Amino acid sequence: MSSDARFNLLDPLFGDAEVAAQLSDGARLQAMLDVEAALAEVEAEVGIIPRQAVAAIRASARVEKFDFGAIAAAAAADGNLAIPLVRQLTRATEVIDRDAARYVHWGATSQDIIDTGLVLQLQRAVPPIMRYLDRAAAAAAAHARRYIDTPMAGRTWLQQSTPITFGVKAAGWLDAVSRQRTTLADALEQTRVLQLGGASGTLASFGKHGAAVTEQLAARLGLRAPALPWHACRDRLANFACALGVTCGTLAKIGRDVSLLAQTEVGEAGEGRSGGSSAMPHKQNPVGASVAIAAAVRAPGLVATMIAAMPQEHERGLGGWQAEWPTLPELVLLTAGSARAIATVLESLHVDEPRMRSNLQSTNGLIMSEAVAMALAAFVGRSEAHGIVEVAARRARDGRCTLIETLASDPAVMRYLTREDLERHLSLEPYVAAARALVERVVGKMG
Amino acid sequence: MSSDARFNLLDPLFGDAEVAAQLSDGARLQAMLDVEAALAEVEAEVGIIPRQAVAAIRASARVEKFDFGAIAAAAAADGNLAIPLVRQLTRATEVIDRDAARYVHWGATSQDIIDTGLVLQLQRAVPPIMRYLDRAAAAAAAHARRYIDTPMAGRTWLQQSTPITFGVKAAGWLDAVSRQRTTLADALEQTRVLQLGGASGTLASFGKHGAAVTEQLAARLGLRAPALPWHACRDRLANFACALGVTCGTLAKIGRDVSLLAQTEVGEAGEGRSGGSSAMPHKQNPVGASVAIAAAVRAPGLVATMIAAMPQEHERGLGGWQAEWPTLPELVLLTAGSARAIATVLESLHVDEPRMRSNLQSTNGLIMSEAVAMALAAFVGRSEAHGIVEVAARRARDGRCTLIETLASDPAVMRYLTREDLERHLSLEPYVAAARALVERVVGKMG
Amino acid sequence: MSSDARFNLLDPLFGDAEVAAQLSDGARLQAMLDVEAALAEVEAEVGIIPRQAVAAIRASARVEKFDFGAIAAAAAADGNLAIPLVRQLTRATEVIDRDAARYVHWGATSQDIIDTGLVLQLQRAVPPIMRYLDRAAAAAAAHARRYIDTPMAGRTWLQQSTPITFGVKAAGWLDAVSRQRTTLADALEQTRVLQLGGASGTLASFGKHGAAVTEQLAARLGLRAPALPWHACRDRLANFACALGVTCGTLAKIGRDVSLLAQTEVGEAGEGRSGGSSAMPHKQNPVGASVAIAAAVRAPGLVATMIAAMPQEHERGLGGWQAEWPTLPELVLLTAGSARAIATVLESLHVDEPRMRSNLQSTNGLIMSEAVAMALAAFVGRSEAHGIVEVAARRARDGRCTLIETLASDPAVMRYLTREDLERHLSLEPYVAAARALVERVVGKMG
Amino acid sequence: MSSDARFNLLDPLFGDAEVAAQLSDGARLQAMLDVEAALAEVEAEVGIIPRQAVAAIRASARVEKFDFGAIAAAAAADGNLAIPLVRQLTRATEVIDRDAARYVHWGATSQDIIDTGLVLQLQRAVPPIMRYLDRAAAAAAAHARRYIDTPMAGRTWLQQSTPITFGVKAAGWLDAVSRQRTTLADALEQTRVLQLGGASGTLASFGKHGAAVTEQLAARLGLRAPALPWHACRDRLANFACALGVTCGTLAKIGRDVSLLAQTEVGEAGEGRSGGSSAMPHKQNPVGASVAIAAAVRAPGLVATMIAAMPQEHERGLGGWQAEWPTLPELVLLTAGSARAIATVLESLHVDEPRMRSNLQSTNGLIMSEAVAMALAAFVGRSEAHGIVEVAARRARDGRCTLIETLASDPAVMRYLTREDLERHLSLEPYVAAARALVERVVGKMG
Repeated sequence: MSSDARFNLLDPLFGDAEVAAQLSDGARLQAMLDVEAALAEVEAEVGIIPRQAVAAIRASARVEKFDFGAIAAAAAADGNLAIPLVRQLTRATEVIDRDAARYVHWGATSQDIIDTGLVLQLQRAVPPIMRYLDRAAAAAAAHARRYIDTPMAGRTWLQQSTPITFGVKAAGWLDAVSRQRTTLADALEQTRVLQLGGASGTLASFGKHGAAVTEQLAARLGLRAPALPWHACRDRLANFACALGVTCGTLAKIGRDVSLLAQTEVGEAGEGRSGGSSAMPHKQNPVGASVAIAAAVRAPGLVATMIAAMPQEHERGLGGWQAEWPTLPELVLLTAGSARAIATVLESLHVDEPRMRSNLQSTNGLIMSEAVAMALAAFVGRSEAHGIVEVAARRARDGRCTLIETLASDPAVMRYLTREDLERHLSLEPYVAAARALVERVVGKMG
Repeated sequence: MSSDARFNLLDPLFGDAEVAAQLSDGARLQAMLDVEAALAEVEAEVGIIPRQAVAAIRASARVEKFDFGAIAAAAAADGNLAIPLVRQLTRATEVIDRDAARYVHWGATSQDIIDTGLVLQLQRAVPPIMRYLDRAAAAAAAHARRYIDTPMAGRTWLQQSTPITFGVKAAGWLDAVSRQRTTLADALEQTRVLQLGGASGTLASFGKHGAAVTEQLAARLGLRAPALPWHACRDRLANFACALGVTCGTLAKIGRDVSLLAQTEVGEAGEGRSGGSSAMPHKQNPVGASVAIAAAVRAPGLVATMIAAMPQEHERGLGGWQAEWPTLPELVLLTAGSARAIATVLESLHVDEPRMRSNLQSTNGLIMSEAVAMALAAFVGRSEAHGIVEVAARRARDGRCTLIETLASDPAVMRYLTREDLERHLSLEPYVAAARALVERVVGKMG
Repeated sequence: MSSDARFNLLDPLFGDAEVAAQLSDGARLQAMLDVEAALAEVEAEVGIIPRQAVAAIRASARVEKFDFGAIAAAAAADGNLAIPLVRQLTRATEVIDRDAARYVHWGATSQDIIDTGLVLQLQRAVPPIMRYLDRAAAAAAAHARRYIDTPMAGRTWLQQSTPITFGVKAAGWLDAVSRQRTTLADALEQTRVLQLGGASGTLASFGKHGAAVTEQLAARLGLRAPALPWHACRDRLANFACALGVTCGTLAKIGRDVSLLAQTEVGEAGEGRSGGSSAMPHKQNPVGASVAIAAAVRAPGLVATMIAAMPQEHERGLGGWQAEWPTLPELVLLTAGSARAIATVLESLHVDEPRMRSNLQSTNGLIMSEAVAMALAAFVGRSEAHGIVEVAARRARDGRCTLIETLASDPAVMRYLTREDLERHLSLEPYVAAARALVERVVGKMG
Repeated sequence: MSSDARFNLLDPLFGDAEVAAQLSDGARLQAMLDVEAALAEVEAEVGIIPRQAVAAIRASARVEKFDFGAIAAAAAADGNLAIPLVRQLTRATEVIDRDAARYVHWGATSQDIIDTGLVLQLQRAVPPIMRYLDRAAAAAAAHARRYIDTPMAGRTWLQQSTPITFGVKAAGWLDAVSRQRTTLADALEQTRVLQLGGASGTLASFGKHGAAVTEQLAARLGLRAPALPWHACRDRLANFACALGVTCGTLAKIGRDVSLLAQTEVGEAGEGRSGGSSAMPHKQNPVGASVAIAAAVRAPGLVATMIAAMPQEHERGLGGWQAEWPTLPELVLLTAGSARAIATVLESLHVDEPRMRSNLQSTNGLIMSEAVAMALAAFVGRSEAHGIVEVAARRARDGRCTLIETLASDPAVMRYLTREDLERHLSLEPYVAAARALVERVVGKMG
């Protein structure tokens, strides 16, 4: 780890080592070199360049041979990394085979190499994200099953609302993560497309072989061939960025829930592997949740950048295309960090069932007011019932007695309901049963 | 049109009347009322509420009966529109049938009505966008076919690069619009899902009928039933917002190209129905392009908002959910405006083929330099050939003579190529042929 | 309130009636008409147009005379509102004085009228925001004073950290609101600048009178005259949008704190005027906090749009300028709504001091661990002390006994500290004293 | 340059070496260490820690002694860089002076070190940006003076509008850059504030010395002391981010203008040091402009992130604070790259005056139509005159003759104007004079 890098220090926290490795400067250049080498191979097969040229180009297309500082410095004048990379590749090939060097980058333009290189990087960098999402989903499913009958307070507007179960909360996380995993995989597949067009995107530099080179190069790189080069139409990348952004949002919802459950005053769940504090010995910080939330604070701006970059000029953008280069990899990396963090959070989550139950009871039954209101509503209408119970709830809160007492002392209530009715309506059981039915729709019937 | 509305004045310019009508305050409330009425019907069928209650609720659920000012004022205290709407609906129902009024909004919570109402609005508001995209695609396809052999300058970095055809440029627009239309339709279909959960999303208020009410209510409203209520998991809406944003980006790429082609100094294409100027009698402003570009400036921020809103607290968000309300409809409307504008721009586009040809010739052949460079490269290598032609191009530019003359006078060139070779390599024909092959991949084989 | 408007229903919740009135379609047109009328007056004074022309133009420049529907419809073709507005103004003037009508809009271009009209709207719409900020600051100051000695748990990472006071929390809000009010006022003053340039921003249409018209028109409208027309340089508006966005962020921080304090399980503070629930009679939703948080979810995207719109083409933008029109007013309105909401929240905030104290004690003293750690550190070093107390804290938590007991039973502690030392270090008094000193720096010395 | 870094390859293109050095991982840690060392010095002076402890801490606070990999790895668990940094600092100090090690980080919390470290980095990283802005302004001023009488086409909506001068265009750039430089400098000064609060921001850990430590530490670090710690109130950083974003927007407006002027078909100006093409030997790409435009595509999203991060929870944010860490430095760096690029573009800009003149004449006088329209308007009213000239302009365009001919052949014109009038009104002179007056307001009276 070099001190003149930027943000590498934060990669283990916000990112992921495996994914970062595919997004490094070295990996970026290697992906571009892979395109150059494969292009030469295909062109030799098709007969555009001599077969003998391939070996030297392939042998030279190894990133460890390249002078990064020189490429970076030259890119400042050339405007992109491909131009100086091709220059060095040509020189490296010359050393091996002077004739072969003539055929480096044959017929291609910088954007072909940069865009297809990026596509290769995505194919290599995203699978770990999928695995983290799978782990997160599996952990959520396990919680959904294990806590299918564990009641806890539902909370809307950060106020206790009605009882739910921890199982149904976890099932909601599972449902969302599974759904978004599919969306992300689909969007990734949409980007698995070669970009090859030559100077202005017509493949003219390949003569009559344009289609053949396209088809074979795509196949050789494990990509699909597009109907048209997409040099100036960036929807595939933008849609993929969107899928990453929404993935961050989905994961941060879990992070937010966990961080709220982990509050000292709530204490219903906590990260198993939580962070300490440099000042406060007793602190256990929800670091994993903060990583996911931070990613969701950052992702919207990066997604917006990818969309804002779309209206690119004519056959190659002037500013928009360039803005994509740092943005999409950054978004991939922070999504990876978020997915890894949430996978770990969910796998190591410790759940405090007694605390859930005691929080549920802390309002002396107010949390079950909806059920009584609905029972009363059958007699006096939803609106009036709502009013009666609202008053009772306020009296219970102010008088610090239980809701059942205030209700039982209200003739407007007892005209229609018995004490037994009240007890039944103020029971947790129907809430748990309703939640159970939902959980089973997601994780399958439980014994 | 009322003077105390905001932005309605700009709707015909930036938006679309048909879509705006589905996103108006009235349409918003009616969609919510449609959910209330259908809920009552389904609950009667299932047996939760009396059959007799339905008629009065249905009859009352007509937006023209509601006092908008009172709802708006009450929403400021209640925190959402559903609470005062339900209050007025209950009162309106009471007038017809006192008993029926008891069953208004039975078992539901505000979010059920607001979210499902929004889903209904999307189903109603988006189809016109699809039609505009179809019109834009059809017009682009017609241009691709008609101008399949019309050469023009390709331009990268806003510099003339190599020849392309107007056909292949239009085919690129067609390809992108068609692809994004599919993405948008898929994302819309993903949102076609009922939201119903009751107070905390467990359906507990429907007792054992939760699943039945969900299935039947979804069916009655033309929606799909979800595995779980999605009150706190907003990925469907966020993904749909993304698809709208990328659609704006795709359309603005066309708008940008048209605006650049329409420049006084380029003059290759122009909007048939362009705007005038209050100061300058001779101006013809590309208004349609500006609408699409403006939409693409605004869309990224709105998409970002929808993603930023995702990490919502527990069973109902506190701020994030509310941020969606004005954002998603605004995004729908500006996408509609952009799609309508580009459909009109492409349908009415006038194309100036002679101007395309004269611009192509304006650099005395420099634009064909790539082909000569590649021909030379077969003899001296890509890199050296590139250098030779670069020098010749500079001499041609400085000496204001044609590229073919400077090349023909260069022994380093003539050692390998004849004058005939040069003429062949500096011909437009191969560019047009290559572009033609691509166009045919998108619009089918042309005669 | 009209049913075909959009979002007016949400204005009382998210916005503010007084500010909305200045941002309505009617107010927008009137501001533009005010510019037209003042321009005619100044031009008559300077001698560019006849003095007799002024009365009819001024008399016609009343928005109630204008056909909004026709303006809106024409704007779709013209590309902006000024062109059809000027057309109607000319016709209205003709009715009064045929000759005067010749001099309507003399020398101006659409952008002069639209930009200066917007500047006038800002001058009229923003002062209420300032008043809301003043109210919020005053209320925060009152809390800072009143609760200067009220201890409560400080919370970092949503974990109880060390004791603070409610006074110092409120002082932090006050400090931030006061600071940002200054920033916002400065940014508003920067926008108080006339835009007048004529067709391409050179004032050529005013001949030798360009400077005089500029100076006098600015003075007449209560604006400053710029060095140059700023038609294509939008930094003033963008900076103002930023100040609005940061104001939303500052206010939402207060909203977030209040929403967290108002949680059922925390219950330390609550909104006096909180919202109910359509399903749950006992709920008291922090509606004001949600308004501020929602505004802060929306504001970043709108700010981003204003910045993204800046790189405008040559002498008038094509897309960027247009994107500003709906964006900046929307941002003004939501800032107003947020400021009004937080002013009301703070003015009506009910604070539960006993609950603050009981939450502070709920961890059996763990929250005071930092002080003991520091006391021990003087003997064994910060790092080792931190470790000793961390272990004791864990034992206290697990054993459900107080921190002082676990510490007192640890020989590694008692070698250096007496029981009295421990008691002193575990006392709230120093925390309150430290916080008091800070509060006094902000609200002045308290008795 | 290391291959496992990310984006360093793009730094010379998009960023700036001098600024990047201040934003590197090494510089980040060193800034934090500078805070730790200064804190110890001040605490010794105030008498909180022993004087003897200082030397060892100061000697240890050198970044080259630290193990970056270990810090990064530990940060993933600790949640920030300060905790492992302090751990290593303590160990390094121990090696020198076992007693001194006890006093490392005395009374501080992670956020104090991270925030104040960031403030120091900003103070070090931003001055080069100011110098680039000065260079850009100086170059723009030189163009404004040199080309004060050089007519060119004004362009609105990318259509030729009326004549301007290149001098007034450059003066507009100068005016905007100068104004934004002031805004940026003010915002930077607002961030020049120490953050020190201890665990929960009350300075309690410094006992009665809180104010003294604050004042002296601020002074020692060249910072101002705040009224209150600002740990949870992030407006200063957010406002600074905004100023950076608007600076990018201001610079990109220049970049956009240059890129449009440099188009092959316009050719009025070009970058002196432009990039080549890997495929097209004749290309001269406006690389500098692309850097500025790309920065302005990226900046809005990063600004939005900084604002979105503001509503931080209680006494320390959980996600929002963390999101700032990579965002603000990135924004500083890309602003630096943009400022450097535009400084270079403007300093090396080559201007083609003959081309400006020939483009101005390319519409056969249409571009001067406004002046004739105004002259006619004095007789027939602005509206009718506009119509007459609009028709003449259309006839001139269609018939490919000059505007003066079509006007001279129109009896409706010649009733009021002589041929000499027409010639005068169609002369460039008044446009140049008007523009000259404006330029002189910005650069001072020219001889």
